[in-house]
Amino acid sequence: MNQISPVQTDTAATAATPDLRRVNSNPDFWYPVAWSSALRRNKTLAVSFAGIPMVLVRPEEGTVFALFDRCPHRQVPLSKGTVNGQTVRCCYHGWAFGRSGRCIDVPYLGKGKMPNGVRTFPVREEGGLIFVFPGDPAKADTVPFPKLAQTANPAYKTKQFGPRVNCHYTFMHENLMDMNHQFLHRRQMGQIKARFLGQDKGEDFIEARYSFMRCAGQQPLAERLIFGKHKDLNGREQPIEEVVTIRTEYPYQTLRITDKDGDLIMDLWTAYVPVDKDERVTQAFGLLSILRPQTPLLIDLIWPALGWFTNRIFLEDKEIVELEQAAWNEVGHDRNVEIFPVVKALRELLTRCGIAQDAAPQADAAPVALAAPAACAATPETTA
Amino acid sequence: MNQISPVQTDTAATAATPDLRRVNSNPDFWYPVAWSSALRRNKTLAVSFAGIPMVLVRPEEGTVFALFDRCPHRQVPLSKGTVNGQTVRCCYHGWAFGRSGRCIDVPYLGKGKMPNGVRTFPVREEGGLIFVFPGDPAKADTVPFPKLAQTANPAYKTKQFGPRVNCHYTFMHENLMDMNHQFLHRRQMGQIKARFLGQDKGEDFIEARYSFMRCAGQQPLAERLIFGKHKDLNGREQPIEEVVTIRTEYPYQTLRITDKDGDLIMDLWTAYVPVDKDERVTQAFGLLSILRPQTPLLIDLIWPALGWFTNRIFLEDKEIVELEQAAWNEVGHDRNVEIFPVVKALRELLTRCGIAQDAAPQADAAPVALAAPAACAATPETTA
Amino acid sequence: MNQISPVQTDTAATAATPDLRRVNSNPDFWYPVAWSSALRRNKTLAVSFAGIPMVLVRPEEGTVFALFDRCPHRQVPLSKGTVNGQTVRCCYHGWAFGRSGRCIDVPYLGKGKMPNGVRTFPVREEGGLIFVFPGDPAKADTVPFPKLAQTANPAYKTKQFGPRVNCHYTFMHENLMDMNHQFLHRRQMGQIKARFLGQDKGEDFIEARYSFMRCAGQQPLAERLIFGKHKDLNGREQPIEEVVTIRTEYPYQTLRITDKDGDLIMDLWTAYVPVDKDERVTQAFGLLSILRPQTPLLIDLIWPALGWFTNRIFLEDKEIVELEQAAWNEVGHDRNVEIFPVVKALRELLTRCGIAQDAAPQADAAPVALAAPAACAATPETTA
Repeated sequence: MNQISPVQTDTAATAATPDLRRVNSNPDFWYPVAWSSALRRNKTLAVSFAGIPMVLVRPEEGTVFALFDRCPHRQVPLSKGTVNGQTVRCCYHGWAFGRSGRCIDVPYLGKGKMPNGVRTFPVREEGGLIFVFPGDPAKADTVPFPKLAQTANPAYKTKQFGPRVNCHYTFMHENLMDMNHQFLHRRQMGQIKARFLGQDKGEDFIEARYSFMRCAGQQPLAERLIFGKHKDLNGREQPIEEVVTIRTEYPYQTLRITDKDGDLIMDLWTAYVPVDKDERVTQAFGLLSILRPQTPLLIDLIWPALGWFTNRIFLEDKEIVELEQAAWNEVGHDRNVEIFPVVKALRELLTRCGIAQDAAPQADAAPVALAAPAACAATPETTA
Repeated sequence: MNQISPVQTDTAATAATPDLRRVNSNPDFWYPVAWSSALRRNKTLAVSFAGIPMVLVRPEEGTVFALFDRCPHRQVPLSKGTVNGQTVRCCYHGWAFGRSGRCIDVPYLGKGKMPNGVRTFPVREEGGLIFVFPGDPAKADTVPFPKLAQTANPAYKTKQFGPRVNCHYTFMHENLMDMNHQFLHRRQMGQIKARFLGQDKGEDFIEARYSFMRCAGQQPLAERLIFGKHKDLNGREQPIEEVVTIRTEYPYQTLRITDKDGDLIMDLWTAYVPVDKDERVTQAFGLLSILRPQTPLLIDLIWPALGWFTNRIFLEDKEIVELEQAAWNEVGHDRNVEIFPVVKALRELLTRCGIAQDAAPQADAAPVALAAPAACAATPETTA
Repeated sequence: MNQISPVQTDTAATAATPDLRRVNSNPDFWYPVAWSSALRRNKTLAVSFAGIPMVLVRPEEGTVFALFDRCPHRQVPLSKGTVNGQTVRCCYHGWAFGRSGRCIDVPYLGKGKMPNGVRTFPVREEGGLIFVFPGDPAKADTVPFPKLAQTANPAYKTKQFGPRVNCHYTFMHENLMDMNHQFLHRRQMGQIKARFLGQDKGEDFIEARYSFMRCAGQQPLAERLIFGKHKDLNGREQPIEEVVTIRTEYPYQTLRITDKDGDLIMDLWTAYVPVDKDERVTQAFGLLSILRPQTPLLIDLIWPALGWFTNRIFLEDKEIVELEQAAWNEVGHDRNVEIFPVVKALRELLTRCGIAQDAAPQADAAPVALAAPAACAATPETTA
C-alpha cells in the first residue's frame, strides 16, 4: 500500500510568506466596479470593493461620483435613495449628501449645524467602465491608470465580459498565467499543447510567452477564423506560429496574441475585483479586443461564435478555480505544490504587491492611508 | 477629496451603555406568541421566545397550557406529539406530560418512579392572542397585562397583522417612534411632513406627539376615508389637525390618532417578540383598531383598502429595518448617529428596561429568576 | 407553577465520558462508501468518509482503487478527471496518478523527477457495495470483514437502500436498538408494543431481543405477507411469536427476525458512514434480506409493497433522528436522559469503540496509524 504523503512539500504559510489566499488586493490602485451602461442618469448603483459598500451616482449633469454606501444616520444604503441635482437623498429619513460627501440637508432639522457626511472615493470613467480608487485618495492622481486593451483603437472590435467567480482573485491570475492547463479545455479546443518560450519579470509584473501546437482533434471554427488554418498543403497540422503573451502587471492581467509578423491580433485586459471583505468572491471585468480582419464583415460574422466559444472556455475556468477555492476552504490554508517557475514567481509577485490579511486595516476602518508597498511602485527590471 | 469620517460620533457601546442591538428583551413581561385561531382543540403549536422552544397545547377541555418544547428523554419537540385529555404525548417513545409539566406515563416503564418532567410557562389568552410569560413565573400574576388596543370595544373594528421581520426588535421601536421617516413612504402617502409637538417620558415609557402636513401629492383613498378630506373651500390642502401619539411602554408600542375633537379614531397596539436566541428575528403581533364611522357600512367597504394600504407601508418599513440589521451584521456593532431627542430617549429606555446580552443567562439555562430591572417597574413620571 | 428542571439528570459529558455526538467513527474498519452499480468501467466516483474526499476509480481492467480526491498540484478533485488504463488524470493540468497513488506523468515536465503522489485507501467490493478502509492500511487485512446479511444466500432476496440522514451516526444506532419507539410508527404499523426479552453484550457488541404484541389497529399487508396472520380461530389477535434481535457489532448494526421455529426470515445489515468531518451527516447503506416464501412468486408480489412500507417507516425514523440532531445543535451538547439499560449500554459501546473528537487527529492530517481501542478488538463475552 503506497502511502505517499500529499503534504510533504506544500506551500505552507510562514511569518515571512503569508498564505496567498489571505493576501488582500492592494486598494491603492484604480479598480473597475461597474460597466458604464449599468448606471443611467439620475440613478444610483450599489457596488462593492472588498466588502466596502459604495454607491455610484450619475447626476443629470456632470460626472459620476462615489460615496460610502451607508447613510451615517442609520446605516441604510444610500443607493436605495433618490438623486436630486448633485445630491443623493437617503430613502429613509431623507438626509441629502453632495458630491463631496457632505450632508447638506436633514428635512426636519434647521439649516444650522449639519451631521457628519460620508466618505467619498475618486472616480474615473473610461473604456465603458467606471473605476474607483478605494485606497488613499491622495494617491489617486499619481497612480498610473491602465491601458484598456484596444478600446480606443478603431482597428479593433472589443467585447466586454464580466463574470462573478466564487474564488480569491489570485486563483484567476494563476489560471490564466499557466497555459499548461489546456488539458482542461480539451473538449473546446481539441488537444493543444503549450510550449513555454520564456518570461520577463520585474517588481510589479511578470510575463510569460507561449506558442501552441495542436496534437490532435479538430481546430474550432472561431479559432480558425481568427488565426487562420494551421495545415500544410498535405492537410497536416502545422505548428501555430502565433505567440501568446500573458502578463500580470499588478493588479491587472493581460493576454496578447501576436501573429508571425508580430502584429497584435488579440488583446485581452482584465481586472479581478474583490467583492467581499475576505476576498473570496471576485468580480472580473474583461475587455477582449480583436483586430478587425481585412474583410470587415468577417468580424461581425464570427462575433457570436467568438462569444460562445470564449464563454464555454471561461465556464470551465470558473468551475476549476471555484473547486480550488472550495479545497482551500476545506483545509483553511493553501496546500498547492507548484512546480512551474512562472507560477511560483507570480505567487511571489501577488504576495509582494498585495496586503497580507493580518497586516490589513480592520474591517471596520476604511482602508485609507496605506503605504503602497515600495516594491510595486518601483521601476520594472527585465529578466530573461 | 472630502474625507469626512462616518464614525466620528457614532453610538459606540461602552461598559456603561451596551450596544442596543445586543440588549435582549426582558422576559419578565407577557408576550404574545401565537394567534388564538392558529391553535385548535386537541392540537399543539410550536412557538418560540428568544430561542426558547415552547409547545402550546389546547386540550379538548380547558385552557391552553405551555411547556418547554423538548421531551426530556431525547430532546425531540413535544409539539410533534399527540394530545390526549390534559396531556401531550411525545411522538417518539410515547412519554406523556401533563399541564404541570410532570411526566405521567412512559409506556414501557412500570408505574413507579417517573422521569423528570419539563418546564412550564404561564399562559393567558386574550384579544385573539395567546400570551406566555417567559420569565420568572412568580412574577406573572403581578406584572401588568397590556390593554390590547380597542379589541374589547364594539365601537371599533380591529385588524390583526403579524409579520415576521429579520431584525432586532429595537429597530422596530425606533422605526415607528421616529415619524420623520415619512420620506420612506412617499410613494404610498405622498409628501407628508411630520411636525413634532412634544414628548412625555417616564421610567418605562416614552411618548411622542406629532401632527402632519401634506406638502404635495394626492391624499390616498384609505387615508381620506378615515380622516376625511383636508381641503378648504378653494381646494387647497389644509393642515391635518389630527394628533398622532406614539408610545413605547416597555415592551409594547402603541400609535393612537385623535381627531380635532380629541376622539380616538385609530388605536394600534403592537408587540415585537424575539424568535431566536440572538433576537435578530422578530415576530410582530399587531392589533389595529379603527373607530367605526357613523355610516356603519363604510368601515367594511374601506377595510380591504386599509389592509392593502397598511401592508404596502409595512413592507417598506420591513425592508428598511432589515437593511439596518444587515448593516449592523456587517460591522458587528451599532454605528447610528442619532440626532432626534425622542429617539435618543427611546434608545435609553430600551437599554434600561432590556437585558444586556453579556448579563443575560446562558443560552442553555432557562431565563428564570431574573430580577426585573427596578427602573421598569417604577411608577412612570411625566416630563414635558 | 411546576418548575421541573429538564437538566437534572442529563447525560453531561465529562472528562471520563465525552459527549456521544462528539465521538467519531473509528476509521480502522471497513466502511461501504458506494454501491457497485454507481461506478462504471473507465469512470471515477467522488465519495467521502468523515470529510476525507476519496475518488473511486474503476479502470477498464481490474479492480476498483481509491485515492485521496485532491490533486497534490492544485487540490482540485481527481474525480473530475479522466481514466486512462490504470491511471486517473487530473482535469486541470493533466497530471496522472496510478493505482499506487504515485504521480506518473506531468505532461509539460520531463520524465525525470515526478512530484509527490496521493494517499491511497484499501478497497474491497462485495455484496454490491464498494468498501474502503479509511484508517491504518496495515490493519486492513486483519480487521474482520462483515457478513452482508444474506446477499450470498439464494434462499433470500435482498433489497438495497441507502438514505442520507442529517445526523450523527450514533442517533441511528440508538433509534434501531430501542424498539420502544414503535409509537413513532403507529400510523404505519398500528399499535404494536415491544416486549423486551433480554440482551447480550461484549466488548464490541450489544444485542437486544424483543417480541411484539399488537394492541390495536390493522395489521399492515406487507407485514402479514411476511409473517402471516396473527389471529386465532375467533379472529382475535394473538401474540406475535417472532423474535426480533437487534445487534450493534461495532461499527455495523443488524436486525434479524426469526419465526417460532427459529428460522431466520428477515436479516437486515446496515452501516452508518459519516460524510462530513464533524460526522453530522450520515450515509446509510442497508441490505435487507427476506427469506423467499415456499410460493416463490409471493416474494416478487410483495416486493414493491415491502419497499413502500419500509420506506414510509424509514422516513419517520429519518425525521425524528434529524430532530434529535437539531436539538443537539441548538444547545451544543447531549441532554438526553436515558432510562432503558440497553440504550445506556449501547451508548457506552459507541463511546468505547469510537474516537472522541478531541483525541482525534486534526482535520488536515490523514487519520492513519490510530491504534484501534483494545476494547473493540477483544473477544466478546456474553452476559444475560
